[in-house]
Amino acid sequence: MSNQEKFKAFSMDKFEEIHQHTFRVENSSFKKESKLFLKELLDLSGMEISYNIFKPSEEMPFFHTHNENEEVYIIVKGEAEFTVDGKVISLQEGSCINVKPQGSRSYKNLSDTDELVFMVIQAKEDSLNYANIKDGVIVE
Amino acid sequence: MSNQEKFKAFSMDKFEEIHQHTFRVENSSFKKESKLFLKELLDLSGMEISYNIFKPSEEMPFFHTHNENEEVYIIVKGEAEFTVDGKVISLQEGSCINVKPQGSRSYKNLSDTDELVFMVIQAKEDSLNYANIKDGVIVE
Repeated sequence: MSNQEKFKAFSMDKFEEIHQHTFRVENSSFKKESKLFLKELLDLSGMEISYNIFKPSEEMPFFHTHNENEEVYIIVKGEAEFTVDGKVISLQEGSCINVKPQGSRSYKNLSDTDELVFMVIQAKEDSLNYANIKDGVIVE
Repeated sequence: MSNQEKFKAFSMDKFEEIHQHTFRVENSSFKKESKLFLKELLDLSGMEISYNIFKPSEEMPFFHTHNENEEVYIIVKGEAEFTVDGKVISLQEGSCINVKPQGSRSYKNLSDTDELVFMVIQAKEDSLNYANIKDGVIVE
């Protein structure tokens, strides 16, 4: 983002283009197809966002927690099943779940025929000072 | 979110249910149909998220900036046109734009026949310490 520009955009024609992206971990052979992190593409500094597609029946192979970030999962298309600290939650289009850093979570695509499209947003817990419309200023 | 529960979920069947929600400003007659803020529903503390639907050709009636939050707009369905500091950007499904706090932005539904479904995410600029997978810990 240049000094002149106060925005940065990333364009797709449809969510299915997530399939064109593979996430690779530096200095590791680990990779995850159909996963795209947006922080660098959008020059984000207060949040991280990833776009994800799971194949039919695909599931996370492990549980994970976070050190300091809360994490929100939003289902864009399809149906997911989350397990957090042993509790099971089913979520479909438009549904979302906030998992606190210490929550041990895993998730899977509930469908054996349709893909699951979802996004994940991380932000530092307790970092937001002004929510709703309280941080906005109308330009006269 | 109870002490026992490290998550909070909000369920919909589809994004069109956003129409069931009207955002009202405290101590004001202002209201906005088809807008839902999620911070309280999800017990968020590091970000604010809103779900929004604009009718065909609907547009924001003003420009606005922010004091300290960066703001990401993600197009879920339809096509939007953003204007930020005089520059015009068209975005469709899956596309997104990060507007820095000082960016003066307005936006509209480019279609005169279809609804525009989009989400807006705010987080405090420069508040994120660990992005990507760097904040995560695999549970053995």
